[in-house]
Amino acid sequence: MYGYALDKEDMEARLTRIEGQVRGLRRMVNEDKYCIDILTQLNAVSAALNAVGIGLLDDHVRHCVRDSIKRGEGDAKIEELVATVARFVGR
Amino acid sequence: MYGYALDKEDMEARLTRIEGQVRGLRRMVNEDKYCIDILTQLNAVSAALNAVGIGLLDDHVRHCVRDSIKRGEGDAKIEELVATVARFVGR
Amino acid sequence: MYGYALDKEDMEARLTRIEGQVRGLRRMVNEDKYCIDILTQLNAVSAALNAVGIGLLDDHVRHCVRDSIKRGEGDAKIEELVATVARFVGR
Amino acid sequence: MYGYALDKEDMEARLTRIEGQVRGLRRMVNEDKYCIDILTQLNAVSAALNAVGIGLLDDHVRHCVRDSIKRGEGDAKIEELVATVARFVGR
Repeated sequence: MYGYALDKEDMEARLTRIEGQVRGLRRMVNEDKYCIDILTQLNAVSAALNAVGIGLLDDHVRHCVRDSIKRGEGDAKIEELVATVARFVGR
Repeated sequence: MYGYALDKEDMEARLTRIEGQVRGLRRMVNEDKYCIDILTQLNAVSAALNAVGIGLLDDHVRHCVRDSIKRGEGDAKIEELVATVARFVGR
Repeated sequence: MYGYALDKEDMEARLTRIEGQVRGLRRMVNEDKYCIDILTQLNAVSAALNAVGIGLLDDHVRHCVRDSIKRGEGDAKIEELVATVARFVGR
Repeated sequence: MYGYALDKEDMEARLTRIEGQVRGLRRMVNEDKYCIDILTQLNAVSAALNAVGIGLLDDHVRHCVRDSIKRGEGDAKIEELVATVARFVGR
């Protein structure tokens, strides 16, 4: 494996960590921590979540999209993929 | 209150919900749900997290930054605020 | 054609329009227009640019990536694609 | 000056450069350059545009918002500022 690829175990481990980070954010809000410190931490959680998203995307293209294309049925999968990236990018 | 403002209780409630959503994401990965469905859900979590970020920012400007400016000491706070927004925007 | 697909002529027309919008932004700065109005316009330009990006991505997946996969050489193209999306998403 | 601050001349110079970069993008599309190369360049333009946006925001907070707060009339300006950042962040 390389680059942005994440195996299933890896993704679950990351999501478990993100869950803990969100709990940490709530605690920071509850304890009236300094806003900027909470925002810095929130930014880190957001980046971690995006990394999982990219991992999922990688997995999806590498298996699902590739297989459809090989069967000559790629069109719908490609359209769905691009629409998903578009939403991800905020369009 | 209006617009993007969130009180403390509201933020904690949202973060509790986000924590549950992240747990849901992990379950979806574990159960090999369709990638695009997981990504759609991940996008929703990301948006919910950003909304909390905007609420924190609103609170920060409305209190911390405003008070510093009123005391004639706004410079450092403004610089910190802009740097935080810049990181948020991914610069 | 559908959804996010843009043909070459369409992309060039959009980029011509974006070029004009950027020129408009410079004029707004030069004429000391209200910052928030300039930012609103800048946001629109940014969104227009992203839409072209999504169009390019669509075109790329639909032709270049698909063809490589069909020739059984998709790996490098997929890796490059995911890396590009990752940079686009700001990771 | 420091960090994210840009003076007016600086912003105009950057926007002139961005205008040229958009023209370059159009040429790349017209000459059928490799999609990924165009996307990489588009990403750079987008980042350059965001940097101008952050400069405008900095200027706005440092003058317009600060002055309103000093006059005891900050509320509307703060609300407008946060709404603008929220749109910038894609919320």
